[in-house]
Amino acid sequence: MAVDLNADLGEGFGRWALGDDAGLLEVVTSANVACGFHAGDPLIMRRTCELAAARGVAVGAHVGYRDLAGFGRRFVDVEPAVLTADVLYQLGGLDACARAAGTRIAYVKPHGALYNALVTHEAQADAVVDAVRAFDPGLPVLGLPGAVWLKRAEVAGLPVRFEAFADRAYTALGTLVDRRRPGAVLHSAAEIAERCVEIALDGRVRSVDGHFVRLRVDSICVHGDTPGAVAIARAVRDALTAAGVPLAAMRGARVDA
Amino acid sequence: MAVDLNADLGEGFGRWALGDDAGLLEVVTSANVACGFHAGDPLIMRRTCELAAARGVAVGAHVGYRDLAGFGRRFVDVEPAVLTADVLYQLGGLDACARAAGTRIAYVKPHGALYNALVTHEAQADAVVDAVRAFDPGLPVLGLPGAVWLKRAEVAGLPVRFEAFADRAYTALGTLVDRRRPGAVLHSAAEIAERCVEIALDGRVRSVDGHFVRLRVDSICVHGDTPGAVAIARAVRDALTAAGVPLAAMRGARVDA
Amino acid sequence: MAVDLNADLGEGFGRWALGDDAGLLEVVTSANVACGFHAGDPLIMRRTCELAAARGVAVGAHVGYRDLAGFGRRFVDVEPAVLTADVLYQLGGLDACARAAGTRIAYVKPHGALYNALVTHEAQADAVVDAVRAFDPGLPVLGLPGAVWLKRAEVAGLPVRFEAFADRAYTALGTLVDRRRPGAVLHSAAEIAERCVEIALDGRVRSVDGHFVRLRVDSICVHGDTPGAVAIARAVRDALTAAGVPLAAMRGARVDA
Amino acid sequence: MAVDLNADLGEGFGRWALGDDAGLLEVVTSANVACGFHAGDPLIMRRTCELAAARGVAVGAHVGYRDLAGFGRRFVDVEPAVLTADVLYQLGGLDACARAAGTRIAYVKPHGALYNALVTHEAQADAVVDAVRAFDPGLPVLGLPGAVWLKRAEVAGLPVRFEAFADRAYTALGTLVDRRRPGAVLHSAAEIAERCVEIALDGRVRSVDGHFVRLRVDSICVHGDTPGAVAIARAVRDALTAAGVPLAAMRGARVDA
Repeated sequence: MAVDLNADLGEGFGRWALGDDAGLLEVVTSANVACGFHAGDPLIMRRTCELAAARGVAVGAHVGYRDLAGFGRRFVDVEPAVLTADVLYQLGGLDACARAAGTRIAYVKPHGALYNALVTHEAQADAVVDAVRAFDPGLPVLGLPGAVWLKRAEVAGLPVRFEAFADRAYTALGTLVDRRRPGAVLHSAAEIAERCVEIALDGRVRSVDGHFVRLRVDSICVHGDTPGAVAIARAVRDALTAAGVPLAAMRGARVDA
Repeated sequence: MAVDLNADLGEGFGRWALGDDAGLLEVVTSANVACGFHAGDPLIMRRTCELAAARGVAVGAHVGYRDLAGFGRRFVDVEPAVLTADVLYQLGGLDACARAAGTRIAYVKPHGALYNALVTHEAQADAVVDAVRAFDPGLPVLGLPGAVWLKRAEVAGLPVRFEAFADRAYTALGTLVDRRRPGAVLHSAAEIAERCVEIALDGRVRSVDGHFVRLRVDSICVHGDTPGAVAIARAVRDALTAAGVPLAAMRGARVDA
Repeated sequence: MAVDLNADLGEGFGRWALGDDAGLLEVVTSANVACGFHAGDPLIMRRTCELAAARGVAVGAHVGYRDLAGFGRRFVDVEPAVLTADVLYQLGGLDACARAAGTRIAYVKPHGALYNALVTHEAQADAVVDAVRAFDPGLPVLGLPGAVWLKRAEVAGLPVRFEAFADRAYTALGTLVDRRRPGAVLHSAAEIAERCVEIALDGRVRSVDGHFVRLRVDSICVHGDTPGAVAIARAVRDALTAAGVPLAAMRGARVDA
Repeated sequence: MAVDLNADLGEGFGRWALGDDAGLLEVVTSANVACGFHAGDPLIMRRTCELAAARGVAVGAHVGYRDLAGFGRRFVDVEPAVLTADVLYQLGGLDACARAAGTRIAYVKPHGALYNALVTHEAQADAVVDAVRAFDPGLPVLGLPGAVWLKRAEVAGLPVRFEAFADRAYTALGTLVDRRRPGAVLHSAAEIAERCVEIALDGRVRSVDGHFVRLRVDSICVHGDTPGAVAIARAVRDALTAAGVPLAAMRGARVDA
């Protein structure tokens, strides 16, 4: 069965660039495109959509808090009705850019502190689910297995997709090891690639304390904002291909116009 | 033949409100809704669309420069490619809010300094036309007769609609008298209402120096951000109704979902 | 002994106004002036400082989170080093406006969600104290008795001043009754004024459950952003004056240039 | 006589970095520090001031239009009173950061589109001069010889300093060749360094059409935002040193606290 590779793209703003988008677009099958609230301005969004469309890469809406100065990485205690409208607006803005590029929003993935908040914050979880439903009740949502917002999304009838993180250590419970713990982030391209193959082929990952943990995975998230990140992403892709795992955008994700 | 009444709505931002939206919605047939770049945040946009939809008022995209601090009232020498993307994003953002409210964008009208720039600025005119075409080549655009951007829009095949200003004096050439000149802005509700009836029935207005000027008008713009403005707008509506002029959204404007 | 009356001023932004600044300036002895991050733009800041200086009203720096869209009313989990710099910048920006108006920053009072966070959030408390010390180690800080940030400020050697809220109910512990509880906010001008006199003369307030609570108060906070608020503020001032309580800016607050 | 080398620093924002600040700080004697309106956030401003102070580099206020999305590179037709307040606020914000770093604002240099506008735009020129005077009537201002704003600054009694551009071609009139013309920007480090020595020693530069043009120069501007730019800046510094030209911050610029 095919697996999707996703990464964050279009994370510049105005004069400022970030990450190696061109490099990542040769590796991934899905691009999480920033929607202007934590990063990304409309011109960057449009051009990122064009580049993705030209390579057949799915465009995901990487929605975030309204916080350019914090890059969407700090929790904002925003009211649910405001969050719903903010996400709805970001979806509409990106979709207009995507359609002008001959494609459309294929899925929704929250960014940064919003991603983390939605794992447990019920009111914000409902708010984001409401936004996606109001925009398009058939649009897939992508996140961490076990996240509250994905449970709410499932109840609401949205197509739910799960991701694993290529370079993160897992606990025996299948949750991510806290970034601040030693060993939380893997750095060896070979090791990361090998784990991704095991995730894709066997549906499991070995936890930091040596147990096998079952993971239901539709997509693997790779990174591109650090030196060497694209090389790791490429190693993951090559290892998956060598292991006979087909790479393809997620089921239900809309790739063409 | 029917005439449309349009006014600017949803011009608050966050904690700040502006104008008497509820009052205006009882008068107008089209609402120019700010799209978040010069005013309007997504929650205000969504609620304004809901109020408009509930009253059968058409939702227009009131697109502007990215300039909250200046309320979009100061010219920004933005590059065409950036302006095109900025407008495209605003259209998408508002359309998502409108659709969530059971309606959709019915037309596009630039705001403030962008409105004025598009009368003569060719590069920005082309940029906005490109944005509207990329979003929806059947979407009507509304502006000042003679404006460069409307000529370009016509060439590009966009449905073009023209507006008159209820409370502004006209020159013998059919252009607006400069705001800084004495008599440029009319203040008498009775006089304003009477002129609007003449515009709607006879397609003409008397200029400041006493000539009759032909005006091709699809819509009349009224204001709501000053004390007494809603009363004037209501006087215009009442006079048009009394004169037997039907009020309706512009031809080609999409009012329902 | 004299008491200070403080209120929030200069809370507009660009085209948007808020509150009755002119009315409040005839009542208060200290103006908490928004510094551009949650409200207030430089022109509004400068003009508010000019109006305050003209009336001999002290200018306080009403510092907040970088959150115009939320009016600084939602908690932002900002890193301490960023918060320190953000507050330092706001202090410098307001001080430049104040000096240009012939006065200077007289004290610092956090706004909205930052005000609430600093009651308990140790890292943010230290961050704000660091900012004030870096700006001017002799600058008084104003807040809620018992707030963590004021304890830290005291240890750091900053002059600490305490305020009471004219229109809020108190618990027997001297804390504010949660806004969402019935009776948390008082609405009777007479009752509010009477309580303020008791606070100023006797240093105590009667709690919601009937006990007398001792309050150490340097300033009383009144509001001006709701209808009738200025009338209540005036009633407070008149009652204090009638009771022989002199009104004056806080000790240590710098009122002139 | 000594000459100053200045460059733009601290041009990142939040997550985004720009240019090689560490490299430039080893070369220049003055750092034009972005003040938060077109680039630079308070933490970046504070850290840039600390780095500059640690190396004895003067901190200049690089003030710009309120336009993060455009990096201050597009003209904004802002009202003079607003521009004055915006610049005043930026000066105060940077000065607070500078003082916390043990230094202070040494001079003022406009950035980008504001720099260009002030060459000819009288109302904006007066507005900026008003801001600097209101902040500190002894603060030097730095710009292009012949610029209207420097003439106004001179009349207003501000210390005026002039700069040359290391890598730009000059006309026989001593103005810069339009960037869009071929040959407008020099790329050879050796040639650029040689010209800078001639400017510093002989007070003249050879124009594109071969004439010698007299230049009154207090500072030479070098760049750091393109690949190789720091190497060119270092070549300029080395050549000046080899020619016996002392490098030092501008006369009147305040380098220490």
